[in-house]
Amino acid sequence: MAQTDTQAEAVLAAIRFDANGLVPAIAQQHDTGEVLMLAWMNAEALAKTLETREAHYFSRSRDELWRKGATSGQIQQVVEARIDCDQDAVWLKVLPQGDGGACHTGARSCFYRIVDGDHLETASDR
Amino acid sequence: MAQTDTQAEAVLAAIRFDANGLVPAIAQQHDTGEVLMLAWMNAEALAKTLETREAHYFSRSRDELWRKGATSGQIQQVVEARIDCDQDAVWLKVLPQGDGGACHTGARSCFYRIVDGDHLETASDR
Repeated sequence: MAQTDTQAEAVLAAIRFDANGLVPAIAQQHDTGEVLMLAWMNAEALAKTLETREAHYFSRSRDELWRKGATSGQIQQVVEARIDCDQDAVWLKVLPQGDGGACHTGARSCFYRIVDGDHLETASDR
Repeated sequence: MAQTDTQAEAVLAAIRFDANGLVPAIAQQHDTGEVLMLAWMNAEALAKTLETREAHYFSRSRDELWRKGATSGQIQQVVEARIDCDQDAVWLKVLPQGDGGACHTGARSCFYRIVDGDHLETASDR
């Protein structure tokens, strides 16, 4: 596991976490390009994600490490992980397991509402 | 402009801005699915985005409203705007103008670095 530790350390050293020790992470369906969710990672969540190649986040509501899919089955296998130019955001291309969804509402993507005119419309592909 | 004001009000009322008055916004190339950048919006930036259909953000470094592309020419025409289930993140599908890029480094996407093994690799499509 020495190599894994090195990997995590090198990447973590480059990341600029915010005042709460978090960075936003975008999870995108790797083959369709659909944005599934935006969640938050602390250093531990990012390290676990890179180590296991399964998306881990930090739950701000529960204040704890969150292995996505641990209870729902919606494990997100990480196909590719990227960081942005100023190293304060993460983009994961993922393959969702279980029912293939990502949202606790039952929608595939958390972004199922389109801002349309003066109201929010539910996307037809929800 | 009454309709525009109504639109902005309805959407803004639904958004849950953070303690700093911001929400993260994902800008995605509308046709390829490439994630171009993650930036931040305050209420004014979101209202301007919906009103003008051009992406506006809030620059945390300059502490001011930021009309993307105002100086670079990389205006982002908004093809679709979505919000997520808990109303604290925005996803924009955009058509970048100017040279078609989004990143101040000259890369098309700010996410041009792939976390690969123990190092960060520059994406071949940069």
